[in-house]
Amino acid sequence: MKNDEHQPTADLRRLGELIEGIEVAMLTTHAADGSIVSRPIQTLQFDHCGDLYFFTAADSGKVEELIAHPDVNLSYAHPSKQRYVSIRGQASVERDRAKIHELWSPLQKPFFPGGEDDPRIVVLRVQVRDAA
Amino acid sequence: MKNDEHQPTADLRRLGELIEGIEVAMLTTHAADGSIVSRPIQTLQFDHCGDLYFFTAADSGKVEELIAHPDVNLSYAHPSKQRYVSIRGQASVERDRAKIHELWSPLQKPFFPGGEDDPRIVVLRVQVRDAA
Repeated sequence: MKNDEHQPTADLRRLGELIEGIEVAMLTTHAADGSIVSRPIQTLQFDHCGDLYFFTAADSGKVEELIAHPDVNLSYAHPSKQRYVSIRGQASVERDRAKIHELWSPLQKPFFPGGEDDPRIVVLRVQVRDAA
Repeated sequence: MKNDEHQPTADLRRLGELIEGIEVAMLTTHAADGSIVSRPIQTLQFDHCGDLYFFTAADSGKVEELIAHPDVNLSYAHPSKQRYVSIRGQASVERDRAKIHELWSPLQKPFFPGGEDDPRIVVLRVQVRDAA
């Protein structure tokens, strides 16, 4: 679904509409023992290139898991609207100060008490491969 | 979490409370290409032994996937209550007529027009390993 144009493709626009208003996704990763595990994660941005952005802590268990297995799944559920979306994607972890600054809001403060310069913050980017 | 007593353990009771009222879970399985994929699935029963029960169609893609990789994940999300539960478990697929009869309700009719004797119905059982 990668898109390098300045406008989102029709598929990406449609996906954006489907996940709109679903703030928290379940991120599923491969654990070291071969099982798969899910954790709630707040979506910060879905850009027109087909990349989803999140914050996570550099020392969290998921970072280790997704460096070993970057193939992840994101589930977005909106039960009252019966909307259930599964996204497959490729994850990467970056400590990009400019992107952290762009995504930062005071709502993140409870998770990162040091603010946007908290050295624990890393950006988790998931490049959407497909969605169903 | 396996329990062979007639009463649920405290852990299983607590898990039952957490997923109560969340009718549809996202079932995550290993696809043949190594990626992980999620699909919505309606929970029919969670028994005191720690087993979750669902119906699925014998010819659905997930059946093949979970025979190859029975380690699955179930995500239960209740956004308005901020409840997000990840369950790891072991899946099995059974064509148990008595169990199909027990779990059947007319609400299943749109999915299995042949009723409870529809030969496409199989029982998907997930034995809970742990939850977070």
